[in-house]
Amino acid sequence: MPTRMLGEPVKRREDPRLLTGHGRYVDDIDLPGMLHAAVLRSPYAHAQIERIDASTARALEGVVAVFTYDDLGPARQRMPLLIPNPALTHPYTRYALARDEVNHVGEGVALVVAESRYVAEDALEAIRVEYQELPPVVDIERAVEPGAWLVHEELGTNVAAHYVGVVGDPERAFAQAAHVFRERLVIERSAAMPIETRGIVAAWDPYREVLRVWDSTQGPIVIRNALAALFGLAPHQVEVIAPDVGGGFGCKIMFYPEEVLIPYAALVLGRPVKWTEDRIEHFIATNHERLQIHDAEIAVDAEGRILGVRDIFLHDAGAYTPYGIIVPQITACQLPGPYKVPNYHVEFRAVYSNTVPVSPYRGAGRPHACFVMERLIDRVADELGLDRAEVRRRNFVQPDEFPYDVGLVFQDGAPTRYDSGDYPAMLARVLEMVDYERFVREEQPRLRAEGRYVGIGLACYVEGTGIGPYEGAHVRIEPTGHVYVATGMPQQGQAHKTILAQVAAEELQVPIERIVVIEGDTAHFGFGSGTYASRSAVVAGSAVALAARRVREQALELAARELEVDPADLVVEDGRIFVRGAPERGLSYWEAAQLANPLRYAYGTEASELLSKPRPWNGPALPPGRQPALEATEYYSPPHATWASGALACILEVDPGTGMIRFHRLCVVHDCGRVINPMVVEGQIHGGIAQGIGGAFYERIVYDENGQPVNASFMDFLIPTAVEVPPIEIAHLETPSPLNPLGVKGVGEAGAIPVPALVASAIDDALRPLGVRVTRMPLGPSELLELIARSTE
Amino acid sequence: MPTRMLGEPVKRREDPRLLTGHGRYVDDIDLPGMLHAAVLRSPYAHAQIERIDASTARALEGVVAVFTYDDLGPARQRMPLLIPNPALTHPYTRYALARDEVNHVGEGVALVVAESRYVAEDALEAIRVEYQELPPVVDIERAVEPGAWLVHEELGTNVAAHYVGVVGDPERAFAQAAHVFRERLVIERSAAMPIETRGIVAAWDPYREVLRVWDSTQGPIVIRNALAALFGLAPHQVEVIAPDVGGGFGCKIMFYPEEVLIPYAALVLGRPVKWTEDRIEHFIATNHERLQIHDAEIAVDAEGRILGVRDIFLHDAGAYTPYGIIVPQITACQLPGPYKVPNYHVEFRAVYSNTVPVSPYRGAGRPHACFVMERLIDRVADELGLDRAEVRRRNFVQPDEFPYDVGLVFQDGAPTRYDSGDYPAMLARVLEMVDYERFVREEQPRLRAEGRYVGIGLACYVEGTGIGPYEGAHVRIEPTGHVYVATGMPQQGQAHKTILAQVAAEELQVPIERIVVIEGDTAHFGFGSGTYASRSAVVAGSAVALAARRVREQALELAARELEVDPADLVVEDGRIFVRGAPERGLSYWEAAQLANPLRYAYGTEASELLSKPRPWNGPALPPGRQPALEATEYYSPPHATWASGALACILEVDPGTGMIRFHRLCVVHDCGRVINPMVVEGQIHGGIAQGIGGAFYERIVYDENGQPVNASFMDFLIPTAVEVPPIEIAHLETPSPLNPLGVKGVGEAGAIPVPALVASAIDDALRPLGVRVTRMPLGPSELLELIARSTE
Repeated sequence: MPTRMLGEPVKRREDPRLLTGHGRYVDDIDLPGMLHAAVLRSPYAHAQIERIDASTARALEGVVAVFTYDDLGPARQRMPLLIPNPALTHPYTRYALARDEVNHVGEGVALVVAESRYVAEDALEAIRVEYQELPPVVDIERAVEPGAWLVHEELGTNVAAHYVGVVGDPERAFAQAAHVFRERLVIERSAAMPIETRGIVAAWDPYREVLRVWDSTQGPIVIRNALAALFGLAPHQVEVIAPDVGGGFGCKIMFYPEEVLIPYAALVLGRPVKWTEDRIEHFIATNHERLQIHDAEIAVDAEGRILGVRDIFLHDAGAYTPYGIIVPQITACQLPGPYKVPNYHVEFRAVYSNTVPVSPYRGAGRPHACFVMERLIDRVADELGLDRAEVRRRNFVQPDEFPYDVGLVFQDGAPTRYDSGDYPAMLARVLEMVDYERFVREEQPRLRAEGRYVGIGLACYVEGTGIGPYEGAHVRIEPTGHVYVATGMPQQGQAHKTILAQVAAEELQVPIERIVVIEGDTAHFGFGSGTYASRSAVVAGSAVALAARRVREQALELAARELEVDPADLVVEDGRIFVRGAPERGLSYWEAAQLANPLRYAYGTEASELLSKPRPWNGPALPPGRQPALEATEYYSPPHATWASGALACILEVDPGTGMIRFHRLCVVHDCGRVINPMVVEGQIHGGIAQGIGGAFYERIVYDENGQPVNASFMDFLIPTAVEVPPIEIAHLETPSPLNPLGVKGVGEAGAIPVPALVASAIDDALRPLGVRVTRMPLGPSELLELIARSTE
Repeated sequence: MPTRMLGEPVKRREDPRLLTGHGRYVDDIDLPGMLHAAVLRSPYAHAQIERIDASTARALEGVVAVFTYDDLGPARQRMPLLIPNPALTHPYTRYALARDEVNHVGEGVALVVAESRYVAEDALEAIRVEYQELPPVVDIERAVEPGAWLVHEELGTNVAAHYVGVVGDPERAFAQAAHVFRERLVIERSAAMPIETRGIVAAWDPYREVLRVWDSTQGPIVIRNALAALFGLAPHQVEVIAPDVGGGFGCKIMFYPEEVLIPYAALVLGRPVKWTEDRIEHFIATNHERLQIHDAEIAVDAEGRILGVRDIFLHDAGAYTPYGIIVPQITACQLPGPYKVPNYHVEFRAVYSNTVPVSPYRGAGRPHACFVMERLIDRVADELGLDRAEVRRRNFVQPDEFPYDVGLVFQDGAPTRYDSGDYPAMLARVLEMVDYERFVREEQPRLRAEGRYVGIGLACYVEGTGIGPYEGAHVRIEPTGHVYVATGMPQQGQAHKTILAQVAAEELQVPIERIVVIEGDTAHFGFGSGTYASRSAVVAGSAVALAARRVREQALELAARELEVDPADLVVEDGRIFVRGAPERGLSYWEAAQLANPLRYAYGTEASELLSKPRPWNGPALPPGRQPALEATEYYSPPHATWASGALACILEVDPGTGMIRFHRLCVVHDCGRVINPMVVEGQIHGGIAQGIGGAFYERIVYDENGQPVNASFMDFLIPTAVEVPPIEIAHLETPSPLNPLGVKGVGEAGAIPVPALVASAIDDALRPLGVRVTRMPLGPSELLELIARSTE
């Protein structure tokens, strides 16, 4: 009987090490002779740099070097535009250190390298920078008005990109609709707050002539490639290692200035250099996300069936656009969600402002899309007096309609084409979980009668996951009894070492303990892009499956040759290959690996009689076409995204006196195709929902009109704790993806997407007696009280 | 026009770095926090260890640890028998540190690890070892007599192996021969003396969980595999790097005790540990070679045609046989040399003695074989009054007789089968070079008349080179403009970085400057065996050629797709692929590498319009079957050895008063198949001949009857200098090998093989008036004077 590994709630193999304090994060890397760096950052949102005088700083005892733009050698060029797009007509990227202008508070102006971080920080204060202040652009609505101050004068506009997407004939649909409803909906600026901030350690290894960089990044290979090209090194001369990384959530995908500066300093100074971002830096130097202002309208027929959607929005790009227009593009493509929108007009402008640049944060434009669409659906239900679930049911893409084309080009350049799903079943299931009918018919009326404001919210969403271009995996059976599995994906807590091992264990039928998963080390695997867009399980998982299958085939072929049987007569169990019905005629994978290699391993490796059998000469030890290993590298490149989906229902109570809310229930039905490990999937959903609750109630980045951040600390930027996150009830629905060998879809961002929409729906329902309508997120107690006050005026 | 790289005397690319003092040898590796090790070695040739008291040593300030056998954890097992052989009926390997018995002066008994080498050396003296002396076995002739003292009591014999090889019907051949001549011929014990002694630095990298070992070895992969198996690590957790290595000559192939001890100490102590062998240790702890005593007979017809050869010899194995019987087996197989020996009986016993173990040293049994066969041929000529060249001509394997089977199984388990050659042309050429006829007819008589002893010597040999099992190569075109070439072969001065680059440059048609050759680092290439047996160019060179060809095909396919032409219409020149006759329609390899990867390199890499061309979506970014790189790994596994050959002639003068000799001419015709780089081939021959001159006149290891080495220093062990080595005239003959894609054969050991035979031939000829016959090597002035004295008695 083959052992089932896929679908099993295998405990996270990474946890014993992490939970006992043996994790190794970048800041734990302590190399002998290591120097420490600190970055001088702009205190102004927008200013001209007139002069930098670092002479006093350079003279301080313990200061080894101070770098300004002029000292950056080959790095005196703009940082790359990572993801161009035809709609991005006015891209603008920064320098690793500001050349003559700073465009947000926190932009790096100088780098100090010293014997200790203390000295480095002291030296920052000794650097004199003369700034000429320029007018700051903060409000993106004003930024697109004629005559607005400009972030980048030479562009002549603050509009980085203007995108228009049209499906069907929206004009006609709106003209012919029974009803049209409009909303202005706002999602405020926010930011990912991983427990571990960014960090980099770089060292030149003179013995192997390698620049080694430990980086808390989500994309070590991209960094490796960029650094090699920048410094004129061959790619193998740069090794980028993402060790344990304490959370990424998107903000560690980027190629940041420090990822150039620290390696460059290490190269120039010939000593290891470390930089660890402190929390205030994280607020002002690590990318943000979220702020969008939507003007959305929906056209429906008399029964609430969607005829068209029109959405025109502004997207705050921050000061630079190295990451292109990925975030608003995702918003635009995913806005229709699980619903059929036959006529769709979407249009956005990505707008420069003198604030931290924007790049994806868990959800990456999807929470905005979901918030807009679900708000419109709720509005339709409310306006037409229909049940909110019923309006959803009436508009769902049906199970027999897959593949379903939304009609726009997705972030990966491929069609926005849903691969599979069962949205009606999903919704039905969550309604059943939350006991929707009973709540609506019995409980809510009863509670209202008691004067309590308890509402039920619904939110459905889809998530394009598992995008390309590709990932690869290298699988090798070792004579030592190990199975080596390497991918280019780094991890930031997603349990890759568990789920990729499950995939390999299932494909090979070996005990999972045998499997060693290596990730995020370019010296082990140098092709691929990284961990983001809920793609690891889909893309790297599929590559592991394909590579493991090929290795299994190799092992069976070899075993068949040795045992003089047909490969079809062999079975594999628990790492042993044997003849069906004759378990004594067989050999282990490890023995097969020994046999594959004419050079046997010395010292006590497992060996059977097979291995000691003398062999007569019959040509090359390794006949043509054979390799000395059971190993394979395979790549998986998805044709387009897989589409996960989910339906949520929550019951929450609002205290109209304090503006506080309390969840009674929070139910999730999630479909990420075939589930590799339900425990890991549930963990992802828990975490995502916690982050979604943060986005719904607590987390926002606030700038004043001068572009000064006003809440850049955990005193003022609120993050939900275990107290604020309710128990989450999860059910899995599995509609396997037809696009990949495992049938899986991604789940990394799922939880974060629907919560603002869900909470808005529930608050509306709870406060229906007061006529409140939520149109912006997040919604803290004071905003909620204000809403209530305004509605009861 | 394709650029020719093969056959060009490209200057060694490694030299600028080495000649300007930028080489990095193991002893140059200086890791922070590094500890230093020293080995306590047995002062006795044979003794029982009663007790070891290291307590005083351990208490010394600066001593971190003292290891004895008991402290070795998993390494408390015998070291592996690397090359078993059915004839090796009594193998015996040592422990990494002696357990209860020492079997040669220099055997390791304890390892001290301290803060400095000085402290470690002091601590050695503080270790008290109680030895019980056992009778030493030194004389191998006595060792095989009944009742001899035994090296390893429990084996019950000193005979490790008894090998008998028979071809044809030697009994009958000898019975029917017109003439039979016998010789007792001796080659004394000697040893390789690389400028750099052995050295090891080992360090555990806690951040990547890797045991990193820098080792002056000829076989890093074998060491890696053994250490992984020994310490229970996955192979990728051990990285063995052979950095610059200052000469190997065979003695650095072995898996030595220190290669276990130093890594083990680093693992146990958690700090880097270095050990560098000092010169005295090199004499007593690094393997020796050479001592064989041959009783040889040759049966010829009346015209001097060989009917049969019978050779029975003793081979001194030293104290242990980890390397099996490779050396005497090579002697046995190669003894017939370039001559047809239809009936052949060869028999040897490998004999234990209480001396340093024996393993291959440049030539590896071949100088012995050549010495025996050429001495027999000269004897035939002298006895029959025939010209020595003529006897050789009459017996050569003829050019139309290839492949030619000697009839024995070679060291690689394959037939001893000569692949190609032209021995008559080779001899004719060298005779012409040295002006043989004129010397013999005119010059020698004139000189003799002047009372001068000037003789001409001849020697012909074959060398089985390029043996398996296999080597591999990884070739990758990088978007950065580099061509990455990695093999598992390390180098010790053979110019791999030049010749492998030539192979890749020729196959790819790229400028050689683009090519980066990485060798001897298991993290880059982990399959293969190492550099020995004159095999690098053949086996690794062929693998590089095969891999480069595949990469070229990949690039052409990709370019054809991009340019919308047939691959057959493309040409490559200077790294650029273009349409034949339309050079403007093309792209560089580096652009092709960018195109292969859907993830482009950021920062100023070479780019053409092709790269910026937007692509419509048509499925996966990486269609099935494609990889994101222009890269290939290929293995080359030879069916059997390639057979290089050579003919040498020298004219030398003996001063019968001083016993000194002086070369007038030394001419070499060498055939190593297709020549990759004549400058490198000539360098190899020069070096080999210098070493051969050492073996003929200077270099010998002398033990006294107690097994005490008596000349273990450069004061007493003489090595020829530039003064002793004459100008060497070299001509190349090329009979390409049909066995590999390059047509090459090996050349690494060539020069060292024929010199003792050559010199013996020349001295005999010079001293013909005195009737001297040389029957042993080396032959210093005192031995020569003694020979002269004996002949004139």
